[in-house]
Amino acid sequence: MSDIRFDIGSLHAAYASGVPVAAMIDAVHARVEAADDPGIFIHLADKADLLAQAKKLGPFNPVTKPLWGVPFAVKDNIDVAGMPTTAACAEYAYMPEKDATVVARLRAAGALVVGKTNLDQFATGLVGVRTPYPIPRNAVDASLVPGGSSSGSAVATARGIVSFALGTDTAGSGRIPAGLNNIVGLKPTVGALSAAGVVPACRTLDCISVFALTVDDAYAVFGVAAAKDAADAYSRAIKVPALAARPPMLSVGVPAKADLKFFGDTSMQAGFEAALALLEKLGCRLVEIPFADFYAAANLLYEGAWVAERFAAVRDFMEVNEAAMHPVTRKIIGGARSLSAADAFKGLYALQDYKAKLASVIASVDLFCVPTAPTHYALDAVLADPITTNSRLGTYTNFVNLLDMCGIAVPTGKRDDGLPMSVTLLAAAGRDDLTAALARDIHAASGLVLGATGWQQPGHAPIGECAPDEMIDLVVVGAHLSGMPLNGQLSQLGARFSRAAKTSAAYRLYALAGQSVPKPGLIRVAEGGSAVEVEVWRLSADAFGRFVAAIPPPLGIGTIELEDGSSAKGFLVETAGLSGASDISSFGGWRRFVGSRDLADQGDQRAKKVL
Amino acid sequence: MSDIRFDIGSLHAAYASGVPVAAMIDAVHARVEAADDPGIFIHLADKADLLAQAKKLGPFNPVTKPLWGVPFAVKDNIDVAGMPTTAACAEYAYMPEKDATVVARLRAAGALVVGKTNLDQFATGLVGVRTPYPIPRNAVDASLVPGGSSSGSAVATARGIVSFALGTDTAGSGRIPAGLNNIVGLKPTVGALSAAGVVPACRTLDCISVFALTVDDAYAVFGVAAAKDAADAYSRAIKVPALAARPPMLSVGVPAKADLKFFGDTSMQAGFEAALALLEKLGCRLVEIPFADFYAAANLLYEGAWVAERFAAVRDFMEVNEAAMHPVTRKIIGGARSLSAADAFKGLYALQDYKAKLASVIASVDLFCVPTAPTHYALDAVLADPITTNSRLGTYTNFVNLLDMCGIAVPTGKRDDGLPMSVTLLAAAGRDDLTAALARDIHAASGLVLGATGWQQPGHAPIGECAPDEMIDLVVVGAHLSGMPLNGQLSQLGARFSRAAKTSAAYRLYALAGQSVPKPGLIRVAEGGSAVEVEVWRLSADAFGRFVAAIPPPLGIGTIELEDGSSAKGFLVETAGLSGASDISSFGGWRRFVGSRDLADQGDQRAKKVL
Repeated sequence: MSDIRFDIGSLHAAYASGVPVAAMIDAVHARVEAADDPGIFIHLADKADLLAQAKKLGPFNPVTKPLWGVPFAVKDNIDVAGMPTTAACAEYAYMPEKDATVVARLRAAGALVVGKTNLDQFATGLVGVRTPYPIPRNAVDASLVPGGSSSGSAVATARGIVSFALGTDTAGSGRIPAGLNNIVGLKPTVGALSAAGVVPACRTLDCISVFALTVDDAYAVFGVAAAKDAADAYSRAIKVPALAARPPMLSVGVPAKADLKFFGDTSMQAGFEAALALLEKLGCRLVEIPFADFYAAANLLYEGAWVAERFAAVRDFMEVNEAAMHPVTRKIIGGARSLSAADAFKGLYALQDYKAKLASVIASVDLFCVPTAPTHYALDAVLADPITTNSRLGTYTNFVNLLDMCGIAVPTGKRDDGLPMSVTLLAAAGRDDLTAALARDIHAASGLVLGATGWQQPGHAPIGECAPDEMIDLVVVGAHLSGMPLNGQLSQLGARFSRAAKTSAAYRLYALAGQSVPKPGLIRVAEGGSAVEVEVWRLSADAFGRFVAAIPPPLGIGTIELEDGSSAKGFLVETAGLSGASDISSFGGWRRFVGSRDLADQGDQRAKKVL
Repeated sequence: MSDIRFDIGSLHAAYASGVPVAAMIDAVHARVEAADDPGIFIHLADKADLLAQAKKLGPFNPVTKPLWGVPFAVKDNIDVAGMPTTAACAEYAYMPEKDATVVARLRAAGALVVGKTNLDQFATGLVGVRTPYPIPRNAVDASLVPGGSSSGSAVATARGIVSFALGTDTAGSGRIPAGLNNIVGLKPTVGALSAAGVVPACRTLDCISVFALTVDDAYAVFGVAAAKDAADAYSRAIKVPALAARPPMLSVGVPAKADLKFFGDTSMQAGFEAALALLEKLGCRLVEIPFADFYAAANLLYEGAWVAERFAAVRDFMEVNEAAMHPVTRKIIGGARSLSAADAFKGLYALQDYKAKLASVIASVDLFCVPTAPTHYALDAVLADPITTNSRLGTYTNFVNLLDMCGIAVPTGKRDDGLPMSVTLLAAAGRDDLTAALARDIHAASGLVLGATGWQQPGHAPIGECAPDEMIDLVVVGAHLSGMPLNGQLSQLGARFSRAAKTSAAYRLYALAGQSVPKPGLIRVAEGGSAVEVEVWRLSADAFGRFVAAIPPPLGIGTIELEDGSSAKGFLVETAGLSGASDISSFGGWRRFVGSRDLADQGDQRAKKVL
């Protein structure tokens, strides 16, 4: 039974077909054994423990427990009741009495804790080698570093030992190891997942992150885990709508060519170019963005005040037991001792300056695409020069939490040397759904197998509908269609494209007279109607309200029946506004009508030229 | 001409009646002379300078220049081009080349800079005596401290030397001196007024504040000054709508009786009770709120990390010229030297905990009312014990900026010993308009004269309507009219009744067929229309969006022309929905139609009874 695939869909399908949870547990342990890597887990639940967890779930029910029987690993700086929390420092260890909030939420949804995973000590590092425990082996190529700080969680996921794993990510710890192990790493908006029960690194920036084999799985886990939590003052109410189809034409910011850094790794450069070509193939519009200010903001993280947060987090321990710490970790964190409170505020001011300066840049595109890591490092190289290599790995990750952005690392293919290629999609806080929606399509287009498992990608889960109380559907008929003159009004309001659709066969479409911007009018008729091509866009209530308030007569918003039997709010015209209008219903939609006119215009021009 | 009143309405009325600006300038200087207080101004513009400023304005025009010819004073930690900025430390002084952003905005609106005012050195203090310059005298009672740190600005305003004055307020410096001098002190939402060109105290908390004789004046100046500013990374886009009438039943949080602190000052206690009685008379509902957490948050300001912001601001100066500083100021700010960066972050975490804990408390009421100061201090008492007295004065002010609240100090009457009584209204960030709207009514009800001038309060400026982009007007025609079955949907969404109205004579009204709740349908017609009675309600964009999304067919929202020539969004019916409907236009409105049916029903019943 060790061939059960652990992506959540496949695992649930196995349960549904009668595979017992014990078979899953056997598979977990068989894979741990096969991995033969003592560096992955610091604490591993035995079969009896897993079985006991599973018994509490009751019969298989993926509706009430969406993560029923799904095994996951937890980075060992996150509390799991009854398992020691070490933060990869045995002398620091304590036995937590309760689960971290996120662990508790995942368990309540049916997930089972397989164990606690290794990390760069105190989550300080991006390499995965700064641990007094054995160094976890990169799951794809053992000569490379596994990436960190969430090394064990990434490797456990890539090897299919678990369906997903929790990491933490302050400076890239949830993205770098994903990129180096051919898996997905979702780094949520800061505060979306409660940090209660996490050993802090930088409390103002820390995120719990999710490693998974697929974007669907990472996003599903994120959705279960996310909630504002009174136990974490930095937690925020971030909406996690069900994944919706991404708008067809996204603008994607990429670092300007002169600002890209690969430190001589031409394979990574070529891999990134291939990833951008893939984005263009998916219909994205690439926009080159100067990156100097992003890099400058990133420098604040280790060169300035934020190291003091790491020191504040472990000061009590360091004062009595500094010698127990990993030498590199001790050196980095100890550096904060000389920083004054005034230095800390100067750092905060500098960050605020970058935030203010970059806000409009970040808002100028839908999202960003950067390489997850600028290069791959061999284990030897990192051990020889632990600081420089680590620092370079953070090139495209360090600024993200500082600037309150969310991100998702997603595999895009193999480099020309066969090593994994990954990009990270970034966006402003709260747009986790948008980055995931695009990452999903990129991953599918890559055709890659999952992690180091050899498993093919499962089919995409059916795309969910937004919860009806979250967003309002708006049927647009004419000048607001994608690419039409007034479509910008929708994007300015943060509207998202949902789908192309047709009305029921109960409407007539008119080209209105006397409009400055040519517009149609849709009207429901008792008989003689036909179907009209429309688009459905989605807005917040506030945006919808503003939009409706700005619609000039004779247009208004009523209820429109769609071909599939559903209905939604959308544009209708007053009968009294049809004076002078032409019935264009026979075109079947405004786009076709406009297209025919453009052709006619071109015809005219050609005709003129001939004359 | 020294009897010209300087509240903006009176001053503009004087200009409009032909009084020359030179008379205003004479009055300024006559009042400076009469005050005989060398502590108010550190730099005073002479008559020639003021005249030169005025000449640049062109002829009196309060429409294009709403502060045309209005004299104001500027606290001497805010830059005015060509006047030295001292921060009350001559050795620190520099000559700014340009105006602070706020000063520039006020000058562009026609205001004239009279001079730079004295302050507690580096804006560190609430007493007004921590200055190497002469101490300004309290304008109401010279035995009392003037309050600080914006001492000179408050006294200049209270004496009618200027129409308004700029202060700064980090811990109460814009409220305490207002309270002690019988004037209004508007402390805006943090970031609403740009701090570019201000000597920082605590950059993360600093606000420019406005002293004025009336709430209308303070709010008008605030409105001119407010704008997001690229030159200040902490500035924010805070809306300043025209003052609207306050909602009739506001809930006002007040410190629970056990948490009130007056340090034995029974006159202040009685004065505060009288102010609360006034609030109740104005229709407010008082809600007692435990205040321990507010006080605990306040303690962070001087006992913790934020002193380091003050040190960061003047570190370079202190390192070479510490001996030049006021001894109390030096002691307080120098205390930050021993604070580490880790201490700073611990302070930020503690504040975040209080913010998270108090967010729901702050949201539980419309606003708060606290005493502006817990007691009045004589000059001697403060000089004898400068730290304790200062600290106590901040009881009700220190927590406000830390918790991102806005506030306005407003005189409420005289205490039983004749000294000024003042309360401060506080609210969540961005609700400056709400606090001002209530403060305006309190001040009017107090019947007090203005500051120390003896001038009666001018009549209130006519209350503005909400700016049209803030709220959306909705024309309701039938079941949503006041008292009708679906009207509750509007109140649940927080809609406010605006007015009864009639449509233009271009509509027909139908009683729709097949509705569970009887409803009319309004439709615009090319000819044969008539006017229909309607009501206009007002909703936020979010509420409007939700409302529109829930409207069932055949009804929808279009644009409705009203009898007065205006138009607004409102209910229309699809022509296709009129099947089976009866034209009831002759009734002139749904209410009359329903009334006639009720009568008919009663008639039927009576008829039945008779039978």
